Amino acid sequence: MQDALRRLNDYWTSRGCLVVQPFNTEVGAGTMNPATVLRVLGPEPWDVAYVEPSVRPDDSRYGENPNRLQTHTQFQVILKPEPGDPQELYLGSLEALGIDLAAHDVRFVEDNWAQPAIGAWGLGWEVWLDGMEITQFTYFQQVGGHNLDPIPVELTYGVERIIMAVQGATHFKNIVYSLAPDGTEITYGEAFGQSEYEMSRYYLDDADVETNRTLYEAYVSEATRMVEARLPVPAHTYILKSSHAFNVLDARGAISTTERAKAFATMRRLMRETATLWIERREEQGFPLLKQVTDEVAEPEASDRAGLGDEPRTLALEIGLEELPPHVVGQTIEAVRAALTEKLGATRLTHGEITVDGTPRRIVALVDAVSAVEPDAEQLKKGPRWQAAFDADGNPTKALAGFMRGQGVGVDEIVKAEFGGNEHAAVRIAIAGRHVLDVAASIVEDVVAGLRAEKNMRWRDPELSFSRAIRWLVALWGDAVVPARISDVVAGRTTYLQRVTAGMTGGRRSDGALVGHVDVPSADELLPTIGAGSIEVFTGQRRSAVVEQAEALASGVGGTIDFEGESALVDEITNLVEDPHAVLGRFDERYLELPAQILTTVMRKHQRYLPLYDASGALMPAFVTVANGLCDDDLVARGNEAVVRARFEDALFFWNADLKTERVDLFVPGLENLMFENKLGSVGKRARRIADVAAALAGRVEVSDAERTTLTRAGELTKFDLATQLVVEMSSLAGFVAGEYAARRGETPEVAQALVETEKPRTASDEVPASTVGALLAAADRADLLVGMFAVGARPTGSSDPFGLRRAALGLVRILREVPALAAVRVSDVLAAAGERYRAEGVAVDDETLAAAGEFVLGRFGQLMRDEGLTVGQVAAVEPSMDVPGAVAALLDDLRQASGEAGLQPLVEALVRIDRIVPEGVEPGLDEARLALPEEKELAREASEVGHAGSLAAFAASSGPLVEAINTFFDKVLVNDPDPEVKAARLGLLASVRELAPAGLDYAAVDAEL
Amino acid sequence: MQDALRRLNDYWTSRGCLVVQPFNTEVGAGTMNPATVLRVLGPEPWDVAYVEPSVRPDDSRYGENPNRLQTHTQFQVILKPEPGDPQELYLGSLEALGIDLAAHDVRFVEDNWAQPAIGAWGLGWEVWLDGMEITQFTYFQQVGGHNLDPIPVELTYGVERIIMAVQGATHFKNIVYSLAPDGTEITYGEAFGQSEYEMSRYYLDDADVETNRTLYEAYVSEATRMVEARLPVPAHTYILKSSHAFNVLDARGAISTTERAKAFATMRRLMRETATLWIERREEQGFPLLKQVTDEVAEPEASDRAGLGDEPRTLALEIGLEELPPHVVGQTIEAVRAALTEKLGATRLTHGEITVDGTPRRIVALVDAVSAVEPDAEQLKKGPRWQAAFDADGNPTKALAGFMRGQGVGVDEIVKAEFGGNEHAAVRIAIAGRHVLDVAASIVEDVVAGLRAEKNMRWRDPELSFSRAIRWLVALWGDAVVPARISDVVAGRTTYLQRVTAGMTGGRRSDGALVGHVDVPSADELLPTIGAGSIEVFTGQRRSAVVEQAEALASGVGGTIDFEGESALVDEITNLVEDPHAVLGRFDERYLELPAQILTTVMRKHQRYLPLYDASGALMPAFVTVANGLCDDDLVARGNEAVVRARFEDALFFWNADLKTERVDLFVPGLENLMFENKLGSVGKRARRIADVAAALAGRVEVSDAERTTLTRAGELTKFDLATQLVVEMSSLAGFVAGEYAARRGETPEVAQALVETEKPRTASDEVPASTVGALLAAADRADLLVGMFAVGARPTGSSDPFGLRRAALGLVRILREVPALAAVRVSDVLAAAGERYRAEGVAVDDETLAAAGEFVLGRFGQLMRDEGLTVGQVAAVEPSMDVPGAVAALLDDLRQASGEAGLQPLVEALVRIDRIVPEGVEPGLDEARLALPEEKELAREASEVGHAGSLAAFAASSGPLVEAINTFFDKVLVNDPDPEVKAARLGLLASVRELAPAGLDYAAVDAEL
Repeated sequence: MQDALRRLNDYWTSRGCLVVQPFNTEVGAGTMNPATVLRVLGPEPWDVAYVEPSVRPDDSRYGENPNRLQTHTQFQVILKPEPGDPQELYLGSLEALGIDLAAHDVRFVEDNWAQPAIGAWGLGWEVWLDGMEITQFTYFQQVGGHNLDPIPVELTYGVERIIMAVQGATHFKNIVYSLAPDGTEITYGEAFGQSEYEMSRYYLDDADVETNRTLYEAYVSEATRMVEARLPVPAHTYILKSSHAFNVLDARGAISTTERAKAFATMRRLMRETATLWIERREEQGFPLLKQVTDEVAEPEASDRAGLGDEPRTLALEIGLEELPPHVVGQTIEAVRAALTEKLGATRLTHGEITVDGTPRRIVALVDAVSAVEPDAEQLKKGPRWQAAFDADGNPTKALAGFMRGQGVGVDEIVKAEFGGNEHAAVRIAIAGRHVLDVAASIVEDVVAGLRAEKNMRWRDPELSFSRAIRWLVALWGDAVVPARISDVVAGRTTYLQRVTAGMTGGRRSDGALVGHVDVPSADELLPTIGAGSIEVFTGQRRSAVVEQAEALASGVGGTIDFEGESALVDEITNLVEDPHAVLGRFDERYLELPAQILTTVMRKHQRYLPLYDASGALMPAFVTVANGLCDDDLVARGNEAVVRARFEDALFFWNADLKTERVDLFVPGLENLMFENKLGSVGKRARRIADVAAALAGRVEVSDAERTTLTRAGELTKFDLATQLVVEMSSLAGFVAGEYAARRGETPEVAQALVETEKPRTASDEVPASTVGALLAAADRADLLVGMFAVGARPTGSSDPFGLRRAALGLVRILREVPALAAVRVSDVLAAAGERYRAEGVAVDDETLAAAGEFVLGRFGQLMRDEGLTVGQVAAVEPSMDVPGAVAALLDDLRQASGEAGLQPLVEALVRIDRIVPEGVEPGLDEARLALPEEKELAREASEVGHAGSLAAFAASSGPLVEAINTFFDKVLVNDPDPEVKAARLGLLASVRELAPAGLDYAAVDAEL
Repeated sequence: MQDALRRLNDYWTSRGCLVVQPFNTEVGAGTMNPATVLRVLGPEPWDVAYVEPSVRPDDSRYGENPNRLQTHTQFQVILKPEPGDPQELYLGSLEALGIDLAAHDVRFVEDNWAQPAIGAWGLGWEVWLDGMEITQFTYFQQVGGHNLDPIPVELTYGVERIIMAVQGATHFKNIVYSLAPDGTEITYGEAFGQSEYEMSRYYLDDADVETNRTLYEAYVSEATRMVEARLPVPAHTYILKSSHAFNVLDARGAISTTERAKAFATMRRLMRETATLWIERREEQGFPLLKQVTDEVAEPEASDRAGLGDEPRTLALEIGLEELPPHVVGQTIEAVRAALTEKLGATRLTHGEITVDGTPRRIVALVDAVSAVEPDAEQLKKGPRWQAAFDADGNPTKALAGFMRGQGVGVDEIVKAEFGGNEHAAVRIAIAGRHVLDVAASIVEDVVAGLRAEKNMRWRDPELSFSRAIRWLVALWGDAVVPARISDVVAGRTTYLQRVTAGMTGGRRSDGALVGHVDVPSADELLPTIGAGSIEVFTGQRRSAVVEQAEALASGVGGTIDFEGESALVDEITNLVEDPHAVLGRFDERYLELPAQILTTVMRKHQRYLPLYDASGALMPAFVTVANGLCDDDLVARGNEAVVRARFEDALFFWNADLKTERVDLFVPGLENLMFENKLGSVGKRARRIADVAAALAGRVEVSDAERTTLTRAGELTKFDLATQLVVEMSSLAGFVAGEYAARRGETPEVAQALVETEKPRTASDEVPASTVGALLAAADRADLLVGMFAVGARPTGSSDPFGLRRAALGLVRILREVPALAAVRVSDVLAAAGERYRAEGVAVDDETLAAAGEFVLGRFGQLMRDEGLTVGQVAAVEPSMDVPGAVAALLDDLRQASGEAGLQPLVEALVRIDRIVPEGVEPGLDEARLALPEEKELAREASEVGHAGSLAAFAASSGPLVEAINTFFDKVLVNDPDPEVKAARLGLLASVRELAPAGLDYAAVDAEL
């Protein structure tokens, strides 16, 4: 391994990188070394390479996990500005390490990097070597809250992983670390195993929490003082130290949610201030490393237009990119198609069919038979009004004379023409048809410059911004280059096929496919040229290839793939490769003892593998991965198998460790060690609150005795899986794991289900609990979170919602709305129950807090409904009922049905009229003695005749006479009679009428919508 | 520079070293990385190389000093076990760095390494490249209190210094750090200058003292806990952290003497426990890296003895060593001479003259005309007593028969012989003369195995131990190898001349001198062979060469060298080289503005340069250095000049910075920032106490008004130079600097002198103050230290005396003894004055404390006198007077004179007789009424006749009759008369007699000495 580090070092220094040493305080990643995090700031160029032992207390495994270490070795490279070909440089470094790129499957898989704690983000990839992530490759965009300019690229190699792949080691301990000249090996385990074990012990078991808290505070205090002293270097050092102390505390499970949020806020602030200071101080020193960098941009290839002839020819465009994220590929194809179609349409060129398709690395557009020149055309140039153009003598007026001078024409060329309905003097101007090369250049420039994705990045180019860097552009009309140029991107005829590696010779790989860059003779040759590189430009065909190859491999081992269920995954795979090459991998059957959901989650989510099932539908110990192009299948399969083995091993290790426990309630005490929130106590305390609140809510709904028993037990166990090792490791499995463990350790199926459902809905698209017990616990869970956080003042602000309160609010609403048993439960009641429970343990929860929490929840509910397609008005209409989400759906249905009734609008108008005049609080009442006028009597009669309406629709259908009576009443009767008793009687009458309408609707809002 | 690190890395890895990364917490030196400090423990082999940025807050200079950085780069190599040729391997690494060893002067200069704070020490050298220390080269002997086995060798390269030498840079900022392929340079300053400045700011000015104290405590607490948890790796990490926090506090001047001592004790303890734990834990794991290492030891060359002939031949012996410390060279020569002479004398070989001499690298012995074999000899073997040998019949008794059987002889061979005055039966046994090769082998083995120095080390050899490693042995008698073998050292005929380097070819260097290893044909060829290597074995001739060459160079520039004054330095130089080659260096005249003492101290002490003086005796800006053998004089001169420039630059920088202050009293407030001792306050407080105590003492001696004025001012300024930068940097100049600055900033010459003298005597051989004022301050200084430390319980224990109290006690005694004005001052008075002053500021100093301090001081005084040659009895004789050291000399003189008087012994005996019978406290008195006996009257008369004696000598001369009267009195008179009044009168008479003898002597002790 030390030889590998030397090779990387030599490779990058030979390319001009400065070498620095690892930082002399613990850092979580090479990025945090000042040689990266400070040097990427400001305008100075900086190329650097270094080794960085990266310390992550949380990854401590006592040296037992084959792939995870509390200290692993990163090799870090920063190229600032990014040099324009960092992917190629990077691949060269892998070859320098002795990795045969022709045999392995190397892929650039979207992985965007963000470290909010230091105000930093960038776009890029994780680089996969046979499915193993070996390098993080990022174009930094922002650090310390500062936009970077120039843009640096960061390469972070995970050295142990690379070496394990290269040496075929299955455990880091077996890596050959050094080799003496006499052949004596020293392994990684021999050299560092003891340290790995002991530091794991420290981080996981033995670090003193109070001491580390003291250290954390001391570091933060020094960092703060150093910022004040305008010394960014020591400030940064102390930020690092505080970060490490925080990580130690975290590994010891001693960090609460609010502590985490507060620590992150502190670090973000300190890092931002430090970054600002750094730039200022570098500027004070005149940016010593700043040297003028000039990018020379080539001119497009010129054509002899005369020789091109007049015949229509194919227009071909290829936008060459660094690997786009899969979901951006399709979007970009569509965007190019739309832009091209529109822009071509706006010219006078004729053309045939437009075809656009592409891969993650190229968007290709072909336009058939594009004419060579536009036909000439004519334009009328508007002069003065015709009436003002000639004087009484028929001579041009001064105005017309001026116009003619300006246009250089005589009066004989003046014609009369209509502009906007008025007659003007005008002149005909001939517009020469432009040559296709000029038109196309302009279109290409617009199309390329107009590319945008949801997330865009900058790179070396001074102006462009897109999902990933645009690296080349082929634009041909026939055999002529379209002379387009957008910022630094110049159109030409050179396309880039699969990248050339040392193992390929003569511009071809072993199956004869072309590789490297190739000149395309003419537009019609573009697709064949790319095809000769074994690249499938057409998405559909690429997808078919993926499916066919995967299916063939699966059936070869008697398995099937659920292509329908995996449709999204297949789409993703299709856009991860240019030249699909499926490879079958296997894993040890013993992992099948894990629930399929865990295994498939790992395969699908982390590895983009297609799981295989046997005839009975059971998961098989095999998978299909799709490499990008020809490779050594055995080698690639072995590599991928090692990756999935390590991941399964991790899961299995925890699974088994957890299931050594006899009963799941034995996990519950462990929740006391997990901090929920400083003032609100442990997760254990929170779990007890949830159980109690759920029990309290159970009093408001119909529950059977059996359900009550289930609720009691599930309440005792609530959240227990947060204390399991598997969930600590894979938090997305919380709930699921609770159910699995509960079922396996003697709990009833109902309890297991309730535990699973407590965590539902996880996302906006997730299902709500199916069982009442699950729903009660889930609602209580969310209410506890919301009320607790509001009580300690941790409300979401702006876009920041570190505790996921928006998601919790939405979950609560959806549970109450969608679980039938809870249809009648009020949001406010749930929150009040949570508040009550908090008060019982001494946490101050006042009415304002509950009101604020309620308002917040209903706000999210409104947003939800708008997201579901309701108008603002419709939402406003049901606003009075939103506290009971279960009622809103019916109301909306009613509204929808009522809207078909002709009688609705007059009815609503009449109701609004009543609302306007009757103050709130007026009791309905028929004071017959004082209701003497006929209109009064008539209204009272109609009202009693209609009676209480079941639904608005029915009411609207039947309320015609009532509405008429109302209107007549208002026409004839002065409600505000001088006699207060009469006035009261009339208001009472109107109130009685209003009461007939279905409650829970804001009729003014309904009116506004009609 | 990064290229140099790469080359070192490649060089050492190609020799089998493992490479580790710098440690991820601040370390003061590469030694502290666990890859050294833990791995050298225990039996496992371990070869490792790594870069270590070493952080020393105290070396912070804001990046302004050309050579000093708060973080400098060490390249560290550990070879365990040491490979037998580490010097050669090391030189190879310098060549790998591109250093032409034939042109440069590379020397191994004694530098023993000890880090008591981690219980570690070793012997070795600093390696000089043209006078610059570039590497620390140490054979580790002990770490963490554990004796090491096997012995590792540590090489610590100071990378910046080496690179500066190689690149000819005069400031670290100008080092070319990296070089891009296009030739773009990035300098060290550009890459790291800002960090150097900012971290200097932090360490010197901005680090928060309280926070760092908190950190220190927290680290110590974690380290302690980890030791308890049996986790040496995290324990070690926290020891490092605590050490760094301590260093930060120290750089901020916030560490008191006791805090330092306490911190060191803590660290020593923790490190020892950690080391023990490490070894235990490695053992528990079965010492995973332990592989069997077998050293194959060759057999000595065999000779055909028959062919060697019988003629006497020269015996030649060369003991080849790694560079001995200069003072050990002469001692070893003498030891070898003595051993050889004695051991040869104990054989029956005849031989001529014995010549022994040597260099730091070889001890050579030649013995003329050693005979080939010992003559045969005879021995009498003792049998039974003659009387018991034969029975009455004259036949052998059983006893004799048994003896004959044992000796295998008949009765006819039995002779009578005397053993110890008794007659025995005996038998004559012939002893064959041994061959010289056998005799010589045995002698050589004894001589070599018997080599010992004051400080000895172990190396790879399993048995030997000496000042430095013994690497080869030439032993020849004529042309035959003497077949000696001592442990792994085997005698042969191969000698090692100057080391071969890449620049030398064909076994010769450019002047034709032989280099490398050469076989010596015969004993007589040894000296010529060594001489052909241009090595001067004879110390006297080497010394002459040094003097002649240096003188020639000096006179060439019109200068002289004070060879007499520099005699010790010339001796040292003579034993630093084998082939003296003097080189003239110069330095900038502007440094001459510094006092010559500073410059010559630097040249002499740090660099072993001979300073040059002009005709007027003024220091010249030039020096002579003596290289070891041929080199490129210009290159070597430039190198040495750069070294001395940096050192002078340091001194000048501080000198100028300090002298920017207008008055020296402006430094005084700075003393408040220096901690003296936690409970005793700042150095400023201590200075005020010293001034006050000195003023108090002034009341006990005769001082003029002028002296009183001087004392007041000097008191105000006492110790001010401890706050100057120059003294902070070069603490040995304390006092001297005070005088210089005071004189330059308007103080009177007397004040300046007093300030210089306050620090005197510095050592046992240093002079005491010449002025009364200086003496008063110096005495007060030491009393303050002693009483303060005793008051806080910090008394010396065992061999530990961290605060230098023994030195202080001795100083106080010498001042009182040797400064005439203070001759009458009592030690107890001085201590009492200091105690009084402490009490005035609230420090509890009780009488026991003062008594203990007094006893301690007098104990040192006694030791001093014994060291000066007095017997225990002589010291005991003056014991009653030791509280007044100024009186003791006169008393001793008197004793010496008196000892010539015949009357002394009877006198003393009489006095002791009186002492024995007269209880203490009896008042002298002549109660004539009750003294009636004639013996009583006679005694009273003699007593009054003799009267008070001026001196013991005079008393002894004149006391004959008195003594006679005393003796008669005792013979005739019963002192203890039953009549108490009579008894009282007789005791009074005796007391009166005793009173006549000079006071201040313990006569019993005087008696015992006679």
